[in-house]
Amino acid sequence: MGSIDIDALANAVLSQLFVPIEASGRHVHVTREQAQTLFGHSLTPDRPLSQPGQYLAKERLTLRGPKGAFENVAVLGPERDNAQVEVSLTDGRALGIQPPLRLSGDTKATPGITLIGPQGTISLTQGVMAAQRHIHLSPEEGRRFGVSDKQVVKLQTFTSRPVIFQDVVVRIHPDFRAAVHIDYDEANGCGLGRDDLGRILP
Amino acid sequence: MGSIDIDALANAVLSQLFVPIEASGRHVHVTREQAQTLFGHSLTPDRPLSQPGQYLAKERLTLRGPKGAFENVAVLGPERDNAQVEVSLTDGRALGIQPPLRLSGDTKATPGITLIGPQGTISLTQGVMAAQRHIHLSPEEGRRFGVSDKQVVKLQTFTSRPVIFQDVVVRIHPDFRAAVHIDYDEANGCGLGRDDLGRILP
Repeated sequence: MGSIDIDALANAVLSQLFVPIEASGRHVHVTREQAQTLFGHSLTPDRPLSQPGQYLAKERLTLRGPKGAFENVAVLGPERDNAQVEVSLTDGRALGIQPPLRLSGDTKATPGITLIGPQGTISLTQGVMAAQRHIHLSPEEGRRFGVSDKQVVKLQTFTSRPVIFQDVVVRIHPDFRAAVHIDYDEANGCGLGRDDLGRILP
Repeated sequence: MGSIDIDALANAVLSQLFVPIEASGRHVHVTREQAQTLFGHSLTPDRPLSQPGQYLAKERLTLRGPKGAFENVAVLGPERDNAQVEVSLTDGRALGIQPPLRLSGDTKATPGITLIGPQGTISLTQGVMAAQRHIHLSPEEGRRFGVSDKQVVKLQTFTSRPVIFQDVVVRIHPDFRAAVHIDYDEANGCGLGRDDLGRILP
C-alpha cells in the first residue's frame, strides 16, 4: 500500500465542492487585423490564463475615453472576430464611459473607445462592456455541479468580506475549466484573496 | 374624507421593509486641533449627510501615501476625538497602503497616512481603514427590523448586479437613521444606483 497524499486528496475533495474565483482586470481583445494596425504584428503569448488556449499577450495598449485614459492595458489572446474592451464600472467613470453589463461576445450597441498602440490607433465604434460575472465550467464539471449552460445561479464567496453573488451566469464549453470570473470592483467588494473559493448554491 | 397620497403611502410601506443603501466615497474625519492645523479654522458645514448632525465640510484635503495621492478628498464633520481616514481597497492599492476592515472608531493598529491641507500638513501614525459595511438604525427602526446593536446580518441588495452581503454589522443609536453604508468597491460591485434599497434577511 502506498502512502496517502493528503494535499492531493484535499484538493480533489475541494474541487468537488468549490470553484476558484479569479479577478479579471481591465483588458482588451482585438482582431488579427487590429493587432497588425496597433502593434505591426499579431499577438505574442506572454503567459497562459486559466482557460485553456487563452493567454496574456506581451503587447500592451492605451485606452482613451472622453474623460481619461489608462496606459499599459492588458491584451488577451488569441485574436477574436470582434474587438472587446472589458473594464470595471470604476474604470468607466475614469474614462467617461458607462459600460453596460454584458456577457463576453455580446458587443452590440455598446459604447466605443480609442485603442492606442505603438504602431497605430483605432477608434472602436463599439465594444466596451463591464463583464457580467460568470462561471466557466467544462461539460463534466457542469454535470458534477448540477448546472447547465446559460443557467443563472447564486455563488457564495469564502472571502474576507463574504457575499452571495446573485445573477451569476454559467458558461459550459469543452475548452473551459472551472473558474469564477469577477471584475476588480466585485473582487475588492468581496475582499478576494489569492486562491479564494466560491460555492455554487443550489 | 381626504384623498390618499399614494407616494407617501408607498414610501411608508417601503420603509417598513427596506433600508436605503448609500455609497461612502473616500473621506477623512479630523479633530478640532487638526482642522486648525490643516485649514486654519474649524470645519465649515457644506451640506448635511443622511445621519442627523453629520455633514460634508466645505474643506478638502490631499491624502498622500507611499505610492500615490488623492487630491480634493472629502472631510466630514463634526470634528471627532480621533482622526480617521476611510478608503476603499482600490484606493489603498493606489496609495500603497493596505487598509484593514474596521468599524468606525476602531483605529487601533491601523496604518498611518499624510494629510495635506491648505494651511498645514499632518503625518498620522494610524487611522486608515476600509469601513466594514454596516447598517445605521434608530432604536425604533431596530425594533421594527427585529435586530439589535452589533448584530451581524445578511443584506440583500435590489441593484443592477444583485448580491447578498454577509457580515453586515447593525449599529443602533438614537442619532441614527436607517441607511446601509458600503464603499465604492462594494457599490460598483453590486451596481448600486440612486435610491436603491436593501432588505435585511432574517
